Amino acid sequence: MNYKMIFKVLGYILLIIALGMIPPLLISAINKQTDMISFAISILLTVLTGFVFAKIPITKKKIKAKEGLAIVTLGWIFASLYGALPFYLSGSIPSYVDAFFESVSGFTTTGATIINDIEVLPMGILFWRSFTHWIGGMGILVVAVAILPMMGTGGFHVFKAESPGPITDKIAPRIKDTAKILYGSYIIITIAEFILLLFGGMSPFESAIHTFGTLGTGGFSTRNASVGAFNNSYITIVISIFMIMSGTNFSLYYDIYKGKWKEVIKNSELKLYLGIIGISVLAITINTNMSLYHNWFESFKHSLFQVSSIITTTGYTTFDYEQWSTFSKGILFMLMFVGGSAGSTGGSIKVIRILALIKLIKRELTKILHPRAIVSVKFGDQPVSEDTLLNISSFFMLYMVIFIFGSIIISLEGIGFMGATSAVAATLGNIGPGFEFVGPTHTYSDFSIFSKLLLSFFMLLGRLELFTVIALLTPKFWRNGL
Amino acid sequence: MNYKMIFKVLGYILLIIALGMIPPLLISAINKQTDMISFAISILLTVLTGFVFAKIPITKKKIKAKEGLAIVTLGWIFASLYGALPFYLSGSIPSYVDAFFESVSGFTTTGATIINDIEVLPMGILFWRSFTHWIGGMGILVVAVAILPMMGTGGFHVFKAESPGPITDKIAPRIKDTAKILYGSYIIITIAEFILLLFGGMSPFESAIHTFGTLGTGGFSTRNASVGAFNNSYITIVISIFMIMSGTNFSLYYDIYKGKWKEVIKNSELKLYLGIIGISVLAITINTNMSLYHNWFESFKHSLFQVSSIITTTGYTTFDYEQWSTFSKGILFMLMFVGGSAGSTGGSIKVIRILALIKLIKRELTKILHPRAIVSVKFGDQPVSEDTLLNISSFFMLYMVIFIFGSIIISLEGIGFMGATSAVAATLGNIGPGFEFVGPTHTYSDFSIFSKLLLSFFMLLGRLELFTVIALLTPKFWRNGL
Repeated sequence: MNYKMIFKVLGYILLIIALGMIPPLLISAINKQTDMISFAISILLTVLTGFVFAKIPITKKKIKAKEGLAIVTLGWIFASLYGALPFYLSGSIPSYVDAFFESVSGFTTTGATIINDIEVLPMGILFWRSFTHWIGGMGILVVAVAILPMMGTGGFHVFKAESPGPITDKIAPRIKDTAKILYGSYIIITIAEFILLLFGGMSPFESAIHTFGTLGTGGFSTRNASVGAFNNSYITIVISIFMIMSGTNFSLYYDIYKGKWKEVIKNSELKLYLGIIGISVLAITINTNMSLYHNWFESFKHSLFQVSSIITTTGYTTFDYEQWSTFSKGILFMLMFVGGSAGSTGGSIKVIRILALIKLIKRELTKILHPRAIVSVKFGDQPVSEDTLLNISSFFMLYMVIFIFGSIIISLEGIGFMGATSAVAATLGNIGPGFEFVGPTHTYSDFSIFSKLLLSFFMLLGRLELFTVIALLTPKFWRNGL
Repeated sequence: MNYKMIFKVLGYILLIIALGMIPPLLISAINKQTDMISFAISILLTVLTGFVFAKIPITKKKIKAKEGLAIVTLGWIFASLYGALPFYLSGSIPSYVDAFFESVSGFTTTGATIINDIEVLPMGILFWRSFTHWIGGMGILVVAVAILPMMGTGGFHVFKAESPGPITDKIAPRIKDTAKILYGSYIIITIAEFILLLFGGMSPFESAIHTFGTLGTGGFSTRNASVGAFNNSYITIVISIFMIMSGTNFSLYYDIYKGKWKEVIKNSELKLYLGIIGISVLAITINTNMSLYHNWFESFKHSLFQVSSIITTTGYTTFDYEQWSTFSKGILFMLMFVGGSAGSTGGSIKVIRILALIKLIKRELTKILHPRAIVSVKFGDQPVSEDTLLNISSFFMLYMVIFIFGSIIISLEGIGFMGATSAVAATLGNIGPGFEFVGPTHTYSDFSIFSKLLLSFFMLLGRLELFTVIALLTPKFWRNGL
């Protein structure tokens, strides 16, 4: 194991994190708020550690899959550990474990909070809290492009076969170029949403915060009542659309830019993603209109927003959906296990895997009717190998295993079934709010320290596609090649 | 499609069902109860239809996979349609849809009931209700041995590789002999439990009823409070043990009979099955002792009984487990998705599949660490093909898809989340009772006709291993070869 190289890269990551703390430092300086000092100290500590790590002399540059796994997992952990400093040092979050939870929740773009009253926090802290979403979102795009395919995991290999976007060798032969294209889209969409929210009457500060939360599919807000506090249909619709855009494969924006509309329209993951959103919005609109709102536009608006928010794993709310019927809540719960598209900032299982699994089930049905037929699953014209299908299947199974055992452990908190299961689903899927104990009007503050750490671990697991983190926990990982 | 042959076989099945109605007819005759007439009419109708079908002249005897699927599915439906007659004609269940639900629940060995007061029913009706469990249990053993392997489904091909029991060609080359061996075990265990329950002070009638419910892993009782009504530790323990035995691969009894203890001990499905039971009983014993019973023996007894009852998909209860903590209830809910072993009368996903899925996840972890390694999943010394693994994966996925969509549809009844999800889990897994709306002190009587029919369909789906039934619903099935 090339430890030196691992820590060197971690050093660079910490330097980026320190860089990210400068905007909130400036904001608190301009507003002459007390959190300025905490940012200064945090930056100092982070830069110091970053430099020490980055200066490690390396003997060999090459890294293998193993080192890639270690860098990704430790990268997120270190970012969260240091990213928690401003929360803790400013006294905004008095317990370091809580600050760490909030920081993990930020960088994994989850948006689960332990803060009961966000509105009293200083502006620098609020900015940093949401900026971690934006950094984390960008981070996951790199990982999806550069690290996961190295290990044949992450659903990206499927996506590669599916969409001949900038990912394949034709357009951008090197990973760096691909990453640049994704970043370009990410930044352009960020600017677009920021401007559109300004038009809606939001302050520049709140526009930025909610843009960060949307693009990273995170969900941290400036208001206790989340987006609902603005009570503004324009803002609701704009954020809905940008959440859906952030849950879309970013390489498709490159295709659009290149005028390849045909490829975009033919993309089967996109079709399924929009199809699930459409049907869910329709079902919930009808159901909530009958049972609650008795107003078609209100029903549609809240339904569109909540469906977009949950499927993309953002977690913003405009309404206390606990008041909805079991039917509508059930659809939301189901969407928690769908997630965004491959190559997006959305978390959870992801649409491409759901698509592969649907095709696999179809294949098995065909095989029962024609036992001797050889049937292969295809994405577009490309057949998907049985190995890839088994990888996707085992991802799904492992996701369920962690969800089930996680829920049982969390239920030891003495909370109800919905609270326990949705807390795990909402952290593992990087969503944020769940139901009952962790519903839209609640926070994660009442959990024990043990549960907070476990849920932080689930956020990390989910964000890094399970296997990445779990491989590190196996004895085999450490056995040879140390 | 060889329709003639299908209906001929259905005719034989109906004649068997008619034969099965003779014991309850005799019981009601001896006890001079009014339900005698209803049995006489039911037998007449069933025999008539059976004869008409069985007398169909056939041109070709050969049946293919397609016809096998049709026979199995239609067989269970016809048995249930005619098996419902005594309930309906005797007036015990005034609605035919309800009677059909009860009959499907019996033959699929589910044990979900729509009868609110069982204790007022005449003895013949009670006997027939439970006897359908016993017949259904025997039926599913034939299907597992004779029909499912023909279609490469049902997990039996895995089980075949795993356990060189009487299934492989060595001992009993022909399916008939295998079936005989399974039947032999089934009948011997039936007699053993019957006698042991008599020793516990149960009447011969109630001993028979509870033996039928145990062997078929059904769960219909003579008492509203189920096995808890007897308030007898001896009976509780005896039934627990026999439930566990009924959820065990029946071919292992043949191995024991032949003195092949080594093969039994080495059987990895058995180890996992007993392991899950052991850990679950331990966890629930500790948890319920702390939170509720404050008595180790009571805690152990109820925990052992309830764990055995749910994992084997029987559904008997000795205690209103709704009073347990979310933790203990969570474990029970999880066990609803485990089920019995392959080649047993238990339903749900089944231990052999869970084992294969665990091994598949392990394989993927190894592959991430060693991307170029070729790793195969093995049962004992036999490698399992990727095709089989994909079949098992897609079964698991399809099970989840039906569970999720089923729950959402059932939630339209306006019931809570736990009620809706557990009703689907308990019918699809052939268990019987669930939580809240369908908890141990409730019945399925309050569902609408639509939901009752849908839940009946889920019982059938679960019992016949999903694909068997769903294949029949695809257009492809009917397209060619009609």
